[in-house]
Amino acid sequence: MADAIVLLSGGLDSATALALTKADGFRCHALSFRYGQRHQVELEAARRVAAALGVASHKVIELDLRAIGGSALTDAIAVPKGRSEAEMSAGIPVTYVPARNTIFLAYAIAVAEVTAASTIVVGVNVLDSSGYPDCRPEWLAAMQEVVRLGTKAGVEQRPITISAPLIHMTKADIIRAGTALGVDYGLTHSCYDPAPSGAACGACDACLLRRRGFEAAGVADPTRYAAG
Amino acid sequence: MADAIVLLSGGLDSATALALTKADGFRCHALSFRYGQRHQVELEAARRVAAALGVASHKVIELDLRAIGGSALTDAIAVPKGRSEAEMSAGIPVTYVPARNTIFLAYAIAVAEVTAASTIVVGVNVLDSSGYPDCRPEWLAAMQEVVRLGTKAGVEQRPITISAPLIHMTKADIIRAGTALGVDYGLTHSCYDPAPSGAACGACDACLLRRRGFEAAGVADPTRYAAG
Repeated sequence: MADAIVLLSGGLDSATALALTKADGFRCHALSFRYGQRHQVELEAARRVAAALGVASHKVIELDLRAIGGSALTDAIAVPKGRSEAEMSAGIPVTYVPARNTIFLAYAIAVAEVTAASTIVVGVNVLDSSGYPDCRPEWLAAMQEVVRLGTKAGVEQRPITISAPLIHMTKADIIRAGTALGVDYGLTHSCYDPAPSGAACGACDACLLRRRGFEAAGVADPTRYAAG
Repeated sequence: MADAIVLLSGGLDSATALALTKADGFRCHALSFRYGQRHQVELEAARRVAAALGVASHKVIELDLRAIGGSALTDAIAVPKGRSEAEMSAGIPVTYVPARNTIFLAYAIAVAEVTAASTIVVGVNVLDSSGYPDCRPEWLAAMQEVVRLGTKAGVEQRPITISAPLIHMTKADIIRAGTALGVDYGLTHSCYDPAPSGAACGACDACLLRRRGFEAAGVADPTRYAAG
């Protein structure tokens, strides 16, 4: 049984990627990051999802991206609300966290090397997304080259494959795939700007993409939204 | 005046890379990492070097690579001593820290994006080295692609250049170049396994490469070695 390191934010996408990886027969090790995100409540969702899907281990890495800043997810910058699809596809939003996914994947590479995992799984996808550059196939291909050329595993030809099973799926596709595998999306958290209670705002990019995804998939949305 | 983010370990190489970057006319921002290295004393050297070379800022990022492990630099694994050049070039040593330089460079990319620095400078070099994969030109080229394809700066064509001015220099070349620029190597620290006093062991790969470099350069070695 091969081991996979699965990046698990606690959101809908990474929960589905984990379920798919488990269904593919991997022993799954979840990896999450407490990086100073304003929606740190997502880590409780990650814990719930990891437990529900029976991971072999779950590691939470602490790092402080607030010290670097430059994003509405880590700084006192307003999270955009109520954006149209056209607005979302018009550029890179202020919720982009500089090099965040490159940093996360770099950590995952380290963990994979140390644990001899054959695969790193990320839940990134480019359709129905906010246009983050570090969610695109080109970025993943470049990171795969980093693994091949810049790690002990790569040089010694014990390949570590970076897998992005959702990369070309729409949000509705993702929800349908996860639902077929029994994923309980009520355990997940997507909102960038949750209420103190943890309830989703319903209006940030992450909430809107998620809501539209449930609608398009014809699946009941179990998300707890803040009133008003 | 363009800004450069210079990775500064406190060792001989990165001190020289900083001096060269300053001589090239950049406003230099030093970036160091407290990552759980057993030779954490190098951060005091980084502070001294940064001050001596008059950097515009010096940021120390805290991260815990001991939690990932897999290296003699972070774990209770003996640091090899007295290795010959043939032994050093025979494979990747236990002092390799999995994906460490990829992690460091990922952070540097984030800092460069946030500060709008045009250049990231790393002191890596492949001659007279311990054979680390994440010090090779191929790895640097892959990381440059990551910047181009996976960052906001790259996508918006505000290029961030990763520069490795020492990449093809021998240790003697490096020492000569730094000496010509007035670098005080007595401020730097290279040893992987220093005495509690901070004195260098004189026998680990880092010490041996440094010692031989001073000999080959015909420059007096200012290093404080532990007795015996």
